Amino acid sequence: MNTSDLRVNGVRLWDSLIELAQIGATPKGGVRRLALTSLDGQGRDRFVQWCREAGLTVTVDGVGNIFARRHGQRGEAPPVVSGSHLDTQPSGGKFDGCYGVMAALEVARTLNDHGLATAAPIEVAVWTNEEGTRFLPTMAGSGAFAGVHSPQHLLAQQDLDGVSALEALEAIGYRGAAPVGGRPLAAYFEAHIEQGPILEDEGKTIGVVTGALGQRWFNLTVTGMDAHAGPTPMHLRRDALLAASYLVLAVNRIGGQTADARGTVGLMQVRPNSRNVIPGEVMCSVDFRSTTSGELEGMEQALREEAARVARETRVEIKVERVVEFPVSRFDAGCVETVRRAAQALACSRRDIVSGAAHDAVYIARVAPTAMIFVPCEGGLSHNELENARPADLEAGANVLLHAVLARAGVVG
Amino acid sequence: MNTSDLRVNGVRLWDSLIELAQIGATPKGGVRRLALTSLDGQGRDRFVQWCREAGLTVTVDGVGNIFARRHGQRGEAPPVVSGSHLDTQPSGGKFDGCYGVMAALEVARTLNDHGLATAAPIEVAVWTNEEGTRFLPTMAGSGAFAGVHSPQHLLAQQDLDGVSALEALEAIGYRGAAPVGGRPLAAYFEAHIEQGPILEDEGKTIGVVTGALGQRWFNLTVTGMDAHAGPTPMHLRRDALLAASYLVLAVNRIGGQTADARGTVGLMQVRPNSRNVIPGEVMCSVDFRSTTSGELEGMEQALREEAARVARETRVEIKVERVVEFPVSRFDAGCVETVRRAAQALACSRRDIVSGAAHDAVYIARVAPTAMIFVPCEGGLSHNELENARPADLEAGANVLLHAVLARAGVVG
Repeated sequence: MNTSDLRVNGVRLWDSLIELAQIGATPKGGVRRLALTSLDGQGRDRFVQWCREAGLTVTVDGVGNIFARRHGQRGEAPPVVSGSHLDTQPSGGKFDGCYGVMAALEVARTLNDHGLATAAPIEVAVWTNEEGTRFLPTMAGSGAFAGVHSPQHLLAQQDLDGVSALEALEAIGYRGAAPVGGRPLAAYFEAHIEQGPILEDEGKTIGVVTGALGQRWFNLTVTGMDAHAGPTPMHLRRDALLAASYLVLAVNRIGGQTADARGTVGLMQVRPNSRNVIPGEVMCSVDFRSTTSGELEGMEQALREEAARVARETRVEIKVERVVEFPVSRFDAGCVETVRRAAQALACSRRDIVSGAAHDAVYIARVAPTAMIFVPCEGGLSHNELENARPADLEAGANVLLHAVLARAGVVG
Repeated sequence: MNTSDLRVNGVRLWDSLIELAQIGATPKGGVRRLALTSLDGQGRDRFVQWCREAGLTVTVDGVGNIFARRHGQRGEAPPVVSGSHLDTQPSGGKFDGCYGVMAALEVARTLNDHGLATAAPIEVAVWTNEEGTRFLPTMAGSGAFAGVHSPQHLLAQQDLDGVSALEALEAIGYRGAAPVGGRPLAAYFEAHIEQGPILEDEGKTIGVVTGALGQRWFNLTVTGMDAHAGPTPMHLRRDALLAASYLVLAVNRIGGQTADARGTVGLMQVRPNSRNVIPGEVMCSVDFRSTTSGELEGMEQALREEAARVARETRVEIKVERVVEFPVSRFDAGCVETVRRAAQALACSRRDIVSGAAHDAVYIARVAPTAMIFVPCEGGLSHNELENARPADLEAGANVLLHAVLARAGVVG
């Protein structure tokens, strides 16, 4: 057959997503299925059952990553892998992570429907604990696969009740025998909801993800002097909240200097936080993101200069501490081009996009040629029980994934 | 004798303040003696004992206000009253309130030392529950005396454990038989630490208090949309904290338009308050103060206009609710002049000053000619265990009080 006419079964994809979302379903229509809980075990069991029904061979590695393989004609060739994660946020939705896994399974099912063989094997991957909610760190399984974290380190992590990740993984029966990482992948593709508003805002169906923003996070501590709001004239104040407010404006200004940069103050704590007392201390966070490390460096510099200026002008002290750094990630140009061409061949409206959030793909990109496919989600909302996406968009993204995988794995016959 | 040479005993005044501060003393050198607790009872007992030793006649009214009278030659004349309160903040200092009571007692003791009689009686007043910490409202006893609150209303108030003010007042033995208010006072003078930095900053010893600022308090509720900090571009955000930061700047700008106005945001709560989530909701307080009701009205108007502008420009909703209003208070011109002349005669460096905070005197001013005397406190710090004042300043303030009282009560013989 002419594989360019090949399409996934959008109804089956949607039905599988909705069925999976019953496991850990919340009253508001969301999903709460934390990594390495018994609900995560049930979700994995359902996935494995579907894989077996599709004739895939299931392997589990030492940190619980699952690989479901559809054999290729060249059995020894490195596989073309696609997938994502099945765990959710505490108040999560139906699509974050699950969509990438179910779309990858749908690719295998579609090939089965049409009796098509690929040259290279294809695999559906489920990465353990992407959200990092019960056990830290985030993107644990993909990070271990890429050699960023040692399996020992991950499995020694404890939850708030003192249960180790190892105990939790064994309890749900997903501590596998396969080595963690150390094998070549021909390519890795991850389909995901955008988790942001850009595609919806511009009316595009497919985001061709070229990489992920680098991140630098800071703690700012502003120390002024708390004093009575009534008797203290404005010119004798050392108001930590006034200083912090100038910094919030500065962070937003610095974040808005280029289209793909971000600057956010998400957390703020005011002391003593009383109506008629001038605040003496404010702690707040800064989250800077950018496509280039040079710009990130410039943003940090601008923040430090602004903090020094505000401290001088408002007579407070401001401590700026960098607490997290995550480098800029650029996906493989060849894989990105594969995704772009697939979207083009399918006549999907599309744009190149940079992921603002990190994903498993960001770690896998360190050890394999990688790209991602974004589809719109309603209002850009995610990590929220109201997270939503349109069946037609999810289907379109799965078709792009199908053709990207086929392009890399090679159709036989 | 020429009473213009009369001076209080500064050492006795200081020693009494320090002795009183032992009752409820905190490890950091402050005082915790909440109204209507057993420590408040102990503080009152000590005061009453001192009054009896000074030959004063003690009366207690139905809400626990204490009046210690030194008889005058014209027994039926309305008394010249001075005093303040003995209760403290939870982390209070040695001087807020206690200074005004002890200075008034020192005036009586000084007259005793010199065997001087006054024409009108003089009284030392202790007003119940000025701080409003265990039971609301603040300035309860003086408010009741002035007819602002009914005694029934005050005594029905409950603390967090469900104990009524009546039960607490009876438990410490200070529910008196005297009627609450309803009798004329010739004048009321209250000495107090400034609780602000102006006198210290300008190197002045005496503040001639001409009145107290009016207050309007508001709750601002800013509603935007919480979203992921990474995937959400700056131009598609509805950041409630960014909007709130513009409002903090506006409140400070509005408060700084005239020398005696104030604008403070003391309280801010951010939701969801997470580092990588754009804040979707912020609640903050606004405290405006001014010497004129016209200016307060203008400040409120400016706040509402600014809130509308910020809401439009940052695409959020802002609700502005007025939650407290306290009218501007102007003290009696004659009493203010009496204080000014006393300070002048004593060659104290001085300035007219407007109280930024409310005091018992603000309520008493509604039913009697009233003025206040401020003395500097270290760094303007108050409602704090580190509250401090210099013995020489406290002595100077008590001398001003002495001569103001004498000017009003009239020396005999």
